[in-house]
Amino acid sequence: MSQELQELIAQTQKSFSEDPAAAKATFTSSSHLVEGFRSSAKLREHTLTIDEPEALGGSDAGPNPVELILAALGSCQEITYRAYATALGIPLKDVRVEIEGDIDLRGFFAVDESVRAGYEAIRGTVHLVSDASSEDIAKLRQIVNAHCPVLDIMSNPVPVTLEVMHEKERSAA
Amino acid sequence: MSQELQELIAQTQKSFSEDPAAAKATFTSSSHLVEGFRSSAKLREHTLTIDEPEALGGSDAGPNPVELILAALGSCQEITYRAYATALGIPLKDVRVEIEGDIDLRGFFAVDESVRAGYEAIRGTVHLVSDASSEDIAKLRQIVNAHCPVLDIMSNPVPVTLEVMHEKERSAA
Repeated sequence: MSQELQELIAQTQKSFSEDPAAAKATFTSSSHLVEGFRSSAKLREHTLTIDEPEALGGSDAGPNPVELILAALGSCQEITYRAYATALGIPLKDVRVEIEGDIDLRGFFAVDESVRAGYEAIRGTVHLVSDASSEDIAKLRQIVNAHCPVLDIMSNPVPVTLEVMHEKERSAA
Repeated sequence: MSQELQELIAQTQKSFSEDPAAAKATFTSSSHLVEGFRSSAKLREHTLTIDEPEALGGSDAGPNPVELILAALGSCQEITYRAYATALGIPLKDVRVEIEGDIDLRGFFAVDESVRAGYEAIRGTVHLVSDASSEDIAKLRQIVNAHCPVLDIMSNPVPVTLEVMHEKERSAA
């Protein structure tokens, strides 16, 4: 798979370089609160169940939204390490990520308006198993952190616009 | 469930107000790249499979990390609408959210260093079914958007620190 992936990355870079419009992608999520705090989200053909733990009023049928954020960051780091190790020919046997995020729930619960609702800090440890030199790993780390989409989304503001459609009755559709 | 939830929210607000230290929570994710771009993430007792679509070099065994981000935002909006509608006594029959996010993949693929790796924009539509007045829905929307953890995480920078542990051989643990 490694050589195929290396070729795929090189080919994709060439094609996006020649035709920047081809690099524009739009991802979508369609979700619905099924019962209580339990939501079902559709992402292409994939379905996720999201819920809150019982202590936060849910039935714990799945991870909660802020846990998804941590899984997104961990897996995005892993995929980006795999992609750039392959592209640069740096050996990488194994990658796993432990992430933790601190939230002060007074933010969500509106107990103190000076407390933010989201994570105050996120810390992670990336465990790499590789024969590469420390210098190559340092180079890999630098390029991964500069190109990891979820790390960028966490670290820098994303413009979000949310429209509300209000109906009195559930429509037939 | 509605009255129970209203009491849980009021009780939680009271307890966090009296004891701010009790509001400090830490969530964790432990993930591992299993094969190719396929990752398995553990969030308490829940397990998620994350992967890339075939066009991006994966085997499409699950949603990808940036799709998780959209599902996190959609479900967090839904849960926050349910929580504050309940807390404020505003009727809410149904809530569902459609989200889309635009990414220019030249960022991830390092084709153009001026292009960010993450979402350039996220747009969503929140569909509410409710007997409430437009004024109550406007009030609800304002309080939800001010207290939705994932909306805060997307809109404002989160300090992220990532340490790298490099081993030559997989350890016995």
